Amino acid sequence: MSGTLYGIGLGPGDPELITLKAARLIESASVIAYPALAGGQSFARSIAETLIPANVLEIVMDIPMTMAREPAQAAYDKGAAEIAAELEAGRDVVCLCEGDPFFYGSFMYLHARLSDRFPVEVVPGVTSLTACAARAGMPLAARNERVTVLPGPLPEDELKQRIAGAESVAVMKLGRHLPKLRAVIEGLGLTDRAVYVERATLAEERICPLSEAPDEAPYFSMILLTKGADPWL
Amino acid sequence: MSGTLYGIGLGPGDPELITLKAARLIESASVIAYPALAGGQSFARSIAETLIPANVLEIVMDIPMTMAREPAQAAYDKGAAEIAAELEAGRDVVCLCEGDPFFYGSFMYLHARLSDRFPVEVVPGVTSLTACAARAGMPLAARNERVTVLPGPLPEDELKQRIAGAESVAVMKLGRHLPKLRAVIEGLGLTDRAVYVERATLAEERICPLSEAPDEAPYFSMILLTKGADPWL
Repeated sequence: MSGTLYGIGLGPGDPELITLKAARLIESASVIAYPALAGGQSFARSIAETLIPANVLEIVMDIPMTMAREPAQAAYDKGAAEIAAELEAGRDVVCLCEGDPFFYGSFMYLHARLSDRFPVEVVPGVTSLTACAARAGMPLAARNERVTVLPGPLPEDELKQRIAGAESVAVMKLGRHLPKLRAVIEGLGLTDRAVYVERATLAEERICPLSEAPDEAPYFSMILLTKGADPWL
Repeated sequence: MSGTLYGIGLGPGDPELITLKAARLIESASVIAYPALAGGQSFARSIAETLIPANVLEIVMDIPMTMAREPAQAAYDKGAAEIAAELEAGRDVVCLCEGDPFFYGSFMYLHARLSDRFPVEVVPGVTSLTACAARAGMPLAARNERVTVLPGPLPEDELKQRIAGAESVAVMKLGRHLPKLRAVIEGLGLTDRAVYVERATLAEERICPLSEAPDEAPYFSMILLTKGADPWL
């Protein structure tokens, strides 16, 4: 009998925001897998670090830092093959994922490669979306309000159109796209409602009005735009 | 010195999807508060049940089942006053919230009433959004895809327009609005991509194609519409 692949959401960064289920599965794992960026440290592994048992087998997927398609595909192909070998040998594999595995998570590339051949269980995690809202003290949505999640790399025109037609908006993956977002939000006259959140729930967390945000943001940063107090209150 | 109000996200229902932080705060609480609907059981309390210490003081906010504004406002006013009395006496209050406190959670009504007078800490939780995706095996979004969250009570025309212009869509709070959503999604030719999820992660969980969903859904149900496999894979 083959093993089960667990895709485990670890939450936004604070190790205490790991769920009881994720903690139990990590603590009892014999094989773990996780992505690391371009030979660097793995953020996912660092969140789970204190829970990882000694003598666990670790499968590191080294993901190249590139927008090109083939090198990243090759990295996930290699990782999936290593994981498949463990599953075929009857061992469960616990894949560590920042945030939630199915919310902009790289786990979906493993899911696409392995879910037709092996049992897969996805354990949802706290997303950066609600973690940023919690830390900024900004309720996202109540009653019949809509929430729109937009990735920062989208074209300027599309961002403008989507933000203009939205209620609560979260713009993720800011990085070098922050100045573009700042211009879009300023053009819509919404700057005084926009908050910038960087590395929410981590020691290096930074929260400030968008007008005071840096010009270059890290990947793990977000702009939140909400309607403010609910009129129904 | 006044106490701190903690708004604690408990996740979608499975008690194992409570975070380590939420569990720690509940286990050490001396005062807890939670909503209950129209004199019935509290779903939030039931999720946290095994963690609640003996001899804890419990503040129950009995929320009337009505669309009218004043009775619900009065219930939150009363709950906020009881919580404020504890905070003023220097005791922390742990407010139990299904899902995430700031993602369609009633905690925001307490936040609006109390956050200018007392220290408030919001502990984010796993949302039904990613819990439903995990249970249905449906990745929500990767790379530069957008995610749109829509409440089911929105007017039919608006739902049609929003769903037509979206990529991944989650429609929440279905209840008696399910037939309307079914018609909208059928009209857009998207029924074969739509999945219905009811009470995700609970024992009574139900997941099926939208075409096989019941005519009347509970409040805790969702339709997920995703693009399917990411072409970048």
